[in-house]
Amino acid sequence: MEWIAESLDRMRKKRPLVQNITNFVVMNTTANALLALGASPVMAHARGELEEMLGIADALVVNIGTLDEHWIASMMEAVRTAKRLKKPVVLDPVGAGATRLRTETALQLLEEGEIAVLRGNFGEIAALLGEHGKTRGVDSAAYSPDEARELAIEASREFGTVVAVTGPVDYVSDGEKTYAVENGHEMLGRVTGTGCMVTAITGAFAAVEEPLRAAVSALVVFGVAAEKAYDEAPYPGTFHVKLYDWLYRIDGELVKKVARVRQVEP
Amino acid sequence: MEWIAESLDRMRKKRPLVQNITNFVVMNTTANALLALGASPVMAHARGELEEMLGIADALVVNIGTLDEHWIASMMEAVRTAKRLKKPVVLDPVGAGATRLRTETALQLLEEGEIAVLRGNFGEIAALLGEHGKTRGVDSAAYSPDEARELAIEASREFGTVVAVTGPVDYVSDGEKTYAVENGHEMLGRVTGTGCMVTAITGAFAAVEEPLRAAVSALVVFGVAAEKAYDEAPYPGTFHVKLYDWLYRIDGELVKKVARVRQVEP
Amino acid sequence: MEWIAESLDRMRKKRPLVQNITNFVVMNTTANALLALGASPVMAHARGELEEMLGIADALVVNIGTLDEHWIASMMEAVRTAKRLKKPVVLDPVGAGATRLRTETALQLLEEGEIAVLRGNFGEIAALLGEHGKTRGVDSAAYSPDEARELAIEASREFGTVVAVTGPVDYVSDGEKTYAVENGHEMLGRVTGTGCMVTAITGAFAAVEEPLRAAVSALVVFGVAAEKAYDEAPYPGTFHVKLYDWLYRIDGELVKKVARVRQVEP
Repeated sequence: MEWIAESLDRMRKKRPLVQNITNFVVMNTTANALLALGASPVMAHARGELEEMLGIADALVVNIGTLDEHWIASMMEAVRTAKRLKKPVVLDPVGAGATRLRTETALQLLEEGEIAVLRGNFGEIAALLGEHGKTRGVDSAAYSPDEARELAIEASREFGTVVAVTGPVDYVSDGEKTYAVENGHEMLGRVTGTGCMVTAITGAFAAVEEPLRAAVSALVVFGVAAEKAYDEAPYPGTFHVKLYDWLYRIDGELVKKVARVRQVEP
Repeated sequence: MEWIAESLDRMRKKRPLVQNITNFVVMNTTANALLALGASPVMAHARGELEEMLGIADALVVNIGTLDEHWIASMMEAVRTAKRLKKPVVLDPVGAGATRLRTETALQLLEEGEIAVLRGNFGEIAALLGEHGKTRGVDSAAYSPDEARELAIEASREFGTVVAVTGPVDYVSDGEKTYAVENGHEMLGRVTGTGCMVTAITGAFAAVEEPLRAAVSALVVFGVAAEKAYDEAPYPGTFHVKLYDWLYRIDGELVKKVARVRQVEP
Repeated sequence: MEWIAESLDRMRKKRPLVQNITNFVVMNTTANALLALGASPVMAHARGELEEMLGIADALVVNIGTLDEHWIASMMEAVRTAKRLKKPVVLDPVGAGATRLRTETALQLLEEGEIAVLRGNFGEIAALLGEHGKTRGVDSAAYSPDEARELAIEASREFGTVVAVTGPVDYVSDGEKTYAVENGHEMLGRVTGTGCMVTAITGAFAAVEEPLRAAVSALVVFGVAAEKAYDEAPYPGTFHVKLYDWLYRIDGELVKKVARVRQVEP
């Protein structure tokens, strides 16, 4: 998949400004992931500046992880504004399924905005599709790879957006084409906000690439960085630090060598 | 103290979901401490989802570090809801004594909620007992070990909750039994939110253990991890990173070997 | 510049309590920078406690990075209270120029407060001076050293405060005297909030030193720490961690040896 390496180069050349309305837990770490990789993050949520900020931004990332009424209002206005300004939007429905507020907020964002990529774990995306699975924090419940693939395809068709269902194997679909990404490492589950980081990085790629390829590129690049980080540091504190190192160090050559991505039959 | 190692194993087996309403400064680091140790953190504060989130959570941690009127309202509702749902609550009265707002908020949380464990430094707990000591940031003022022990016992009786007064030696009391924990390292004072981390970890143990033992287990486990981290990294940046590594690596054998905890006479 | 080493010693002896009203992205990292260096951070923004908290604080740092109407109200009250209590205030106008809300908020803080030091990048300070440059996230646009020096002097005269324009070379001016600081490393641009860290550290120095010297001391100390960190760790994750190590390890001897600071002609 030559184009992943090319997406990475193109993204770094552009150094896209990624506007984030995200949760308090990961504001620092997603900003650092974007910076390490070569994008330029900005975090802004005041309604009085959304129009201007999105005017200069190349993409918008919305993450509902620590939502409340004030933040929901900002998120809604942000996705509407981004739609009007034709900026790509990536949505992370953190905790959808755990509470009605989260499920409903995510669904409303999908409705009011023009979402380019929806990224969540199995439980979150399943909840949005009306399943009554209860997500457990940011974890995914047990499910088969086949179910994850089907979920990505079905959710993509339902919501009219690219959907990435991430887990041991990630499935990314635009309803027609579907990719499986096997890069990554389970140690990512021991560091908070790694899902949010890959969502933020998807925003950076969405600034230079169409949504399906943006999502796949982000998952491969992030997954490879995680594998390299784990090679150097098998414990969560140092692993987390090395993850930024490898988001900085990763290049097209490395991606081509270790990417494990394939197109799958629907 | 065989039971500390057993608490750790039990906690890891359960992987409790710990709901945190905490301060902006430490949201990321307390989530990472919980994940590294083997618990599952969730941060949620919207009043519209507290009931549902606490319904699936195994414990609640409330930390008033960056309180304001909106967050206080969430905290109050959360402790009342947790009481009704019979979920253990751990309270960290950050900065009590520094301002009336903090002292009064902490006292009101103690009154409205069913607090299992109250953890603070000497100045904070003393302020809650009506002393007019001024706490200085998150630091403890000068005091003797005897005073700390007495304070833990007295506050425990006054508030009807287990109280952990942390400092060079930590004292934990339920008003009848009192433990002294000597694990830990002064480098913890050079990293923000380490007190908040141990409070969060107390929440994880409170999900599988009665409050007195939960508080002691958390302090021993965190203190041992800090000692091991310092052995590897005597400067605050790398020490902080290694702390997560050791929260992950620590096991019952290590705890039994290096725990320094004893029951003390009241 | 013997006095920089002396400022550092004096600051560490005093261990000033620095009150921060700052942005969500950097609350943790600026607190850690202050702690590593030897100051004592507190983050508090509730209007009901500002008076008391500022009463015990030695300096106030205001950073508008994730401003909104609630936080702006706190910031305004904080700078007015600090003025009344005669506490030095350091202002970081993050993103001024990117949106009108940021530019206007920063200007209003300069007007309502008694700002000791204003620290920003070229684009931010230029925007405050009425230039219509668009800042790009936290980056500085292209400009010459001469322009940066002139901007620092002009802004200082205009706003009646010490101004630090940071970039490849930092210029600090009180309108009469101007210093150029060449310490630092470009890897700082790959870690979020490093500008905010140096602003916070300026607050610590402002508690023990007049504003011009406080700003220069902070920039030299932080820049030297960054250089040492990079020597040990040339990638952003580990570099970031080592930065705290070196804020802790730096001392007057090291400062004297590697400081690159000079007074420049206006």
